Amino acid sequence: MTYLEKLSQIRLLMKEKGVDGYIIPSSDPHISEYLPDHYKCIAWTSGFTGSAGTLVITQSFAGLWTDSRYFVQANEQLNGSGFELVKLKVQHAPEYVTWLGETLPKGATVAFDGNLASLAVANAVKTILDPLGINVNGHVDLLDPVWKNRPTLPKEKAYTLPVTTTGQATKDKIAAVRAVLKQKRATAHLISSLDDLAWLLNIRGTDVKCNPVTLGFVFISQEKAILFIDSDKVSQEVVSELLSHGVEIQEYAKVQAYLKGLSKSDIILLDPKRTCFATYDSVPQDVTILEEMNPSTMLKAIKNEVEINHQRNAMINDGVALTKFFKWIEENVASGILTEMNIADHLRELRAAQPGFKDISFDTISGYKDHGALPHYKAEPHSNYDLKPEGLLLVDSGGQYETGTTDITRVISLGKLTQEEKEDYTVVLKGTIEGSMAIYPKGTRGYQIDAITRRPIWATLRNYGHGTGHGVGFFLNVHEGPQVFNPTATDIPVEVGMITSIEPGLYREGKHGIRIENLVLSKELSSNQFGDFMDFETLTICYIATDLVDKSLLESTHIDWLNNYNQWVYDSLESKLTKEEATWLKEKTKAI
Amino acid sequence: MTYLEKLSQIRLLMKEKGVDGYIIPSSDPHISEYLPDHYKCIAWTSGFTGSAGTLVITQSFAGLWTDSRYFVQANEQLNGSGFELVKLKVQHAPEYVTWLGETLPKGATVAFDGNLASLAVANAVKTILDPLGINVNGHVDLLDPVWKNRPTLPKEKAYTLPVTTTGQATKDKIAAVRAVLKQKRATAHLISSLDDLAWLLNIRGTDVKCNPVTLGFVFISQEKAILFIDSDKVSQEVVSELLSHGVEIQEYAKVQAYLKGLSKSDIILLDPKRTCFATYDSVPQDVTILEEMNPSTMLKAIKNEVEINHQRNAMINDGVALTKFFKWIEENVASGILTEMNIADHLRELRAAQPGFKDISFDTISGYKDHGALPHYKAEPHSNYDLKPEGLLLVDSGGQYETGTTDITRVISLGKLTQEEKEDYTVVLKGTIEGSMAIYPKGTRGYQIDAITRRPIWATLRNYGHGTGHGVGFFLNVHEGPQVFNPTATDIPVEVGMITSIEPGLYREGKHGIRIENLVLSKELSSNQFGDFMDFETLTICYIATDLVDKSLLESTHIDWLNNYNQWVYDSLESKLTKEEATWLKEKTKAI
Repeated sequence: MTYLEKLSQIRLLMKEKGVDGYIIPSSDPHISEYLPDHYKCIAWTSGFTGSAGTLVITQSFAGLWTDSRYFVQANEQLNGSGFELVKLKVQHAPEYVTWLGETLPKGATVAFDGNLASLAVANAVKTILDPLGINVNGHVDLLDPVWKNRPTLPKEKAYTLPVTTTGQATKDKIAAVRAVLKQKRATAHLISSLDDLAWLLNIRGTDVKCNPVTLGFVFISQEKAILFIDSDKVSQEVVSELLSHGVEIQEYAKVQAYLKGLSKSDIILLDPKRTCFATYDSVPQDVTILEEMNPSTMLKAIKNEVEINHQRNAMINDGVALTKFFKWIEENVASGILTEMNIADHLRELRAAQPGFKDISFDTISGYKDHGALPHYKAEPHSNYDLKPEGLLLVDSGGQYETGTTDITRVISLGKLTQEEKEDYTVVLKGTIEGSMAIYPKGTRGYQIDAITRRPIWATLRNYGHGTGHGVGFFLNVHEGPQVFNPTATDIPVEVGMITSIEPGLYREGKHGIRIENLVLSKELSSNQFGDFMDFETLTICYIATDLVDKSLLESTHIDWLNNYNQWVYDSLESKLTKEEATWLKEKTKAI
Repeated sequence: MTYLEKLSQIRLLMKEKGVDGYIIPSSDPHISEYLPDHYKCIAWTSGFTGSAGTLVITQSFAGLWTDSRYFVQANEQLNGSGFELVKLKVQHAPEYVTWLGETLPKGATVAFDGNLASLAVANAVKTILDPLGINVNGHVDLLDPVWKNRPTLPKEKAYTLPVTTTGQATKDKIAAVRAVLKQKRATAHLISSLDDLAWLLNIRGTDVKCNPVTLGFVFISQEKAILFIDSDKVSQEVVSELLSHGVEIQEYAKVQAYLKGLSKSDIILLDPKRTCFATYDSVPQDVTILEEMNPSTMLKAIKNEVEINHQRNAMINDGVALTKFFKWIEENVASGILTEMNIADHLRELRAAQPGFKDISFDTISGYKDHGALPHYKAEPHSNYDLKPEGLLLVDSGGQYETGTTDITRVISLGKLTQEEKEDYTVVLKGTIEGSMAIYPKGTRGYQIDAITRRPIWATLRNYGHGTGHGVGFFLNVHEGPQVFNPTATDIPVEVGMITSIEPGLYREGKHGIRIENLVLSKELSSNQFGDFMDFETLTICYIATDLVDKSLLESTHIDWLNNYNQWVYDSLESKLTKEEATWLKEKTKAI
């Protein structure tokens, strides 16, 4: 079936059911960013494979609303699909709902499948459309009737992690969540988000590509803890272990029925951003719903000492793989055998040879020349560039290790460096450095770190359309909340123990892309009469190329930071490298 | 009646009426910051005269929740009142409601007078307390029965401004508001905020000290525009002029009755931050209420060319007064006759001698030595310091001119300068300069400008507890929304044409306070493939003292900015000064 045929079938169903506007969000009942194939509804409907976007269909228009990271990709992938790209002005803003409100008349009906929309999205739809007299129905699935051979849900086995890895036993984590529930007077709580579930129960799985999670829900009250999971996924050993922490097992499909059994005296805490509308709507009307962030989300984001030390080790292993990788590229680029795709494969192999490797943490972005200007580019056979000894190569990649998750972007020059490339690189590097050097008081929000990182880039009349940084899980999702470093008004403090990326960039369409990304740990620095101050420890251990640096654009503080960083990279990795590799790295990390 | 007696009478009434927690917000039916005496409920109840705070009373506790600007002042003023200071962690956050939720049992009742609370505050109270099973009643006035000889509402005359002053006729402003209402499908709109009313109708008054506003409400639909105002305030001329713009007059007291007449088909736009709960609650239940910012608030914040040019002129007049003032202080400090209070009086006289002077724009903060460490200090007879040829003097002041509103803070040394004073001054100046030099893309929020201003101050492990800047009206309130430069997640873009202050500070309790404040205009800078960039034009024209600068702490860009600024100040003011004054200013503005 072509995309146009799918679209026309959906429109037929819309007419039949009296739906004037149909919204297809990019999500699932767990509000996952990376979706099991069963829930890849936007890709199936329109061909667009980016991880963020929303489809909206009316009888006269079909559009994909997405942010600037995906503009180029969407333009390409939507070609001939019947869908048009609508550029979001503000990342994640419900601009498509505003559009529906402006487009549809009073009395019209807008519908979506409540399993694909978070409660927050559903609320935004209702808040905007209700006052305009537009009806909203969150229980309309128009895809299932049209989607033949839809993939089933994954059935991979789940496994548990020892406390020597996680630093905190499951029962202690549950107790910590219960303490928050008690303080908020909630009697019940449902966790839908898979990484919160994985963190809480010290459990991992392989249900979702790159994200070591397992499909399930967790219900918690002061007395009970229930994991709703496909029982085929859990061995008797896992069941016994969970039971020893007070967690019982029930079938995945029974979660909504369980919620229906809550009573009038219950107060259930549900996270509007991490609970789908269908789950929310299965709670009886007379139960009080407390809409707050999952307590586990903040607890999980603040890494404990065991996790932090493991993470530091994972960084060394990752740095070894990356050093071998960049050396190998430098030595082989002239041969003409390297391509965007085969270098990504080789990087995976180098990481796989490291201790504790489980998977990559996201699809490697291997962007050569103008492909580097697509922030979320993934090389495919039809686009796959051969590498030559010229131009810039951007590699954004990461690994899932048993003892940590990594995410790093570096840009190297393959030759024939231009002054524009050097200037762009140096300006971005200045952003990375100023962000990394930031000193900030307790209570600082991610948007403040974002502004500090962008300031030197803005000062040159440059900017980038994506966020400056995202939280990163501990052997969990590479994008982890609640903190973000981006310009949106996200009112979450940066806490000691959080791990976040700093990754400013610059994208010249048709020319090149630059992004320099490290993971940083938020730490206590010192306290005085003016407050408690924090700073960042950079965790990522991989040299930053200096041949692209135009030193005249940097201040001495930047140069000092860069030289110290590269020296530390060399000192940290040397003992794990061959003599030849160490010699090569010494040259790369030489002070400028 | 003592404060303790008032408190015990209020507690008696609470018992009688079954109220377990009573909230007294700092506001009025117009959600004004500066209140008519009739509404100075917090000062009457507790003695605290700061402009921001909330009283909360239970049978066992009475507290004032306020932010760090007022900690020292509140500690002093609350002494013996029965009220304790509770320090807000986050400015304007409803932390007292959280406290009530944690303190009171299920089934308790919390009450307030809906005339004193914005809808936003009332909503926050309900949102937090409802799920906890605590009852909320927004129609309980416990002060009026206790408050003997309560001042009546002001009866000052209102007057209109010509379009040559305002740049836009009343009828055109009303049309602009109507266009927004239409776009949002609202059929009706009520403006409660006095500065929105004043802007919309090009009307001014003297009902509130320092704020040239007149008490009233404006109702707008596509057909009607009604000013609800005490008819004694408006002359026949004003009535006729308003009528010529399609505005009719009704009595002030009739506004709630008018709202009660709205019909089921109406959609009324009300601003939850600028409408009191009692007004909101007078709208019939079956009328749809659209809770959005008053359209006039954003329209008013974006100054037109006529306003901007007037404002630039007002700045010259203000700068002349300030130059004479600082010269006079320097020449008279040794005589021993100067005090915090009499210099404030003299500054008022110097401003009053300038063309178009109407009033000061807020009570002058004249803080000598440790008094400078109280960001909102007002010298009173019992606190009034004599000035001596030593220590720092902070003067934060402003004027209301027919053609603009000013607000400026400068710090000068009266002698015996210490290295700590120089360092503190230079670090704050660096913040003022980096904020003023910021280049930022369209869509930037105030919290990003705030972070850029604070960065160099944070880098030295210093910080200040207040915001970096506030919007300023055009011959209107010195604090004007919607934009703010502060750390809170206030999701309002900085738009071309906005006038905002940049005023970082530093406060060493018991020693000195520093704040360097200019008003800046947001302007278009240039556009390219990376976006539309903006920058600031500094409007304030008054030299920045350089004898306090430790040049070694500044980079060359800062020094250039400072020298250029001071040169521009000299060039702008020279022709309006006596020869002697010009010579004095030339020395003050000499490049460093």
